[in-house]
Formats: sequence, C-alpha cells, structure tokens
Amino acid sequence: MLAASVLLYDNPVSGNCYKVRLLLAYLGIPYERRELSVEDRSNREDVLGGLSPALRVPTIVLDDGRSLGESGAILWYFGEGTRFVPEDPFERAQVLQWMFFEQYDHEPAIAVVRFWVTHGRADEFADRLPERMEAGYKALQAMERHLERRLYLVGDRLSLADIALYAYTHVAEEGGFDLEPYAAIRSWLGRVAAEPAHVPI
Amino acid sequence: MLAASVLLYDNPVSGNCYKVRLLLAYLGIPYERRELSVEDRSNREDVLGGLSPALRVPTIVLDDGRSLGESGAILWYFGEGTRFVPEDPFERAQVLQWMFFEQYDHEPAIAVVRFWVTHGRADEFADRLPERMEAGYKALQAMERHLERRLYLVGDRLSLADIALYAYTHVAEEGGFDLEPYAAIRSWLGRVAAEPAHVPI
Repeated sequence: MLAASVLLYDNPVSGNCYKVRLLLAYLGIPYERRELSVEDRSNREDVLGGLSPALRVPTIVLDDGRSLGESGAILWYFGEGTRFVPEDPFERAQVLQWMFFEQYDHEPAIAVVRFWVTHGRADEFADRLPERMEAGYKALQAMERHLERRLYLVGDRLSLADIALYAYTHVAEEGGFDLEPYAAIRSWLGRVAAEPAHVPI
Repeated sequence: MLAASVLLYDNPVSGNCYKVRLLLAYLGIPYERRELSVEDRSNREDVLGGLSPALRVPTIVLDDGRSLGESGAILWYFGEGTRFVPEDPFERAQVLQWMFFEQYDHEPAIAVVRFWVTHGRADEFADRLPERMEAGYKALQAMERHLERRLYLVGDRLSLADIALYAYTHVAEEGGFDLEPYAAIRSWLGRVAAEPAHVPI
C-alpha cells in the first residue's frame, strides 16, 4: 500500500490514542496522523463535528469517508478477525468486559490524575485528587488480583483487553501511582512491552 | 427450557441492569434475579469477588459457573449473533462506539445525577452538580444531532446501541434533565419503547 488509507486524529500524550497506534503497529496498518490539542479544545466542533459523538481523540476517518470515535470501538474495528480478538463468544465478551472496565473505572481515575499532574493542574483539582487516586488504586487492585493467576487478561494470549489497559497503566507512575506493590501488573507490563512490533507511547 | 440458565445480579433502579433485562426480554432468555443494593455496597466483595472486576451490578453467572461483569460486555455476549448486533464489521464498531460513548460520557453524567437526585443526595454533591448537568446535556445534544437524520443509532434498526442508550435517557427527567427540546430523542424513545417484548425498567 503506497498511501495511508486511515486518517487518525491523534494526540501524542493521550493513552487512548496510543492504544490505536499500538494496535495499528502490531497489525502493520499504515495511517496518517493529524494532531489535536488536548488542552485547547476550542476547535473540536469544527474538526471532529459529525465524525465522532464526543468530539474526542482518537477519531479515525477511512478513505471512503466513514468515521469512528471511541478508542474501544476503533480497536474492535481493526482487531476483529485478527489474533487480538478471540473467536470464542465468551472470551470476546471477556475482552469487552475489560475494555469497558478500562473506560469506566480505570481511565477516569488513572488517566485523569495523570493529566492533572503532568499538565500542572493538580492544585486546581486538589479537592478531587484523593478520591480519584483511591479509585485508581481500586482499579489496579482488580487488575492485580486477576493477573496473579494469568499471563494475559483474557485467555492465554495478548488481546485488545491488554492493549486497552496497558496504555494508561504503563504510565500510571506519571500521575503519582506507585506500581511497586503490584508484582503481577509489573510482570504483565513487561510481557506486553515485549510483543514484537511494540511501539512506545 | 425449564430452569433459568442465567443468574443476574441485579438492582431494580439501575439502568445498567435494566439494559440486560431488556435484551434478555427481547431474546426470550429466562434468568434468575438476585438483588444487590446500590446504596449499601459493603457486601460486594463477598458476593461478587472473582465474578466481576469492578464488583458492580449487573454481573451474570452462567450455569457452568462462568461469570461476566460490565453491562456492555453482557449485552454483547447475548446480543452477538442476533438481530441486535449487525453483521457488517463497520456497523458492529459503530454499535460499540455508542456503547462506549454511553459508559464514558452519558452514564457518568445522566445516571449519576439521577442517582444523586432520587436518593436525596443532591445537596451533598451540590458542587459537582452543575458540571455533571452540563456534561449530561452535551451527551444528549450529541444523540439529538445524530438522531435528527436517523430512526436508530446505527443502521436502520434497533441494536445494542439503542438498548444501551435508552436505559438512562428514558429516565433522564428523574434527574432533572429536560428532554422537551430534544424532539429527535423523544421520537426515538417512543420507537424503542414500541419494540415487541419491551419491558419497563
């Protein structure tokens, strides 16, 4: 393929965007990046209006003009039919279970705290920080308990579930989360990072 | 089938649980309900430990002991292979796009405000209420814009996307959201409610 057939509205520090870049790298799918700020969102309606319900990155546009938002949905679109989505119906649902867990419990705590801390806004949100830290550690504990007896989140190989949860877990320390007590998570992070064609955030 | 092969950990006011009950009703799948409180969550670890990462309702247990949490994953497990999940790969991803949008943008605003208001806790969360109301209206606007030109959220028939977003949208007024300006949403709510085998929350 000479030209990229996928346009990715992207941001280099967003873990949600990184999930998509990681899967596209694993799959060898070429794409074009268009960077949007995650601080100044004033142009979102102009750029992403009609392309994505929540006007967030990542959003993709295919070469026929069809578009898709939500990192989990984009992962599923490219991942279904590959080794990253199991064929067994129950395991497929388990992959989605962890992806929904990531978006509801893990990301709104760990990614949000990381954003506040790395963008110098921890003071502004000081009243919410303890509760978000506690929620983040609760999510990490749920992962740790599960990974203590497993190599990957679902089945015995890497799936979209691992890609989705790797994204913000591997940079959780940037938000002040201490991963030291989570031996199973740290071992799993190493396994994901050792995957051939892995790319850094 | 004589006995229910599905056990649903459930709560009668939870929209997330209602999504599952609605789909199981559409599909004619019998199930047994076990009610958990959404106010006193002190027994969650005892009851749901090992069954569901986030220890929330809905969680299901199949008759072979396998379990699954996260409403979106449970919907996908029962919905895949039925008329509620399209066969086209892009439309499948669109269904998931709206389901992730619901869990990330819609539910944490509309369901959370409804919970505060209906459980007499609006005063306790008064400092967060305006921001959550604004986020809720933003989610409703995204739905309205999309539904203005469509009968259903994805394709031309009811899918898991509609079931997922119907659950808390149709009771949004319990949280104080005014649906009057949202003509396309109100018309769509009527269409979903008119589906044969529909059940109330």
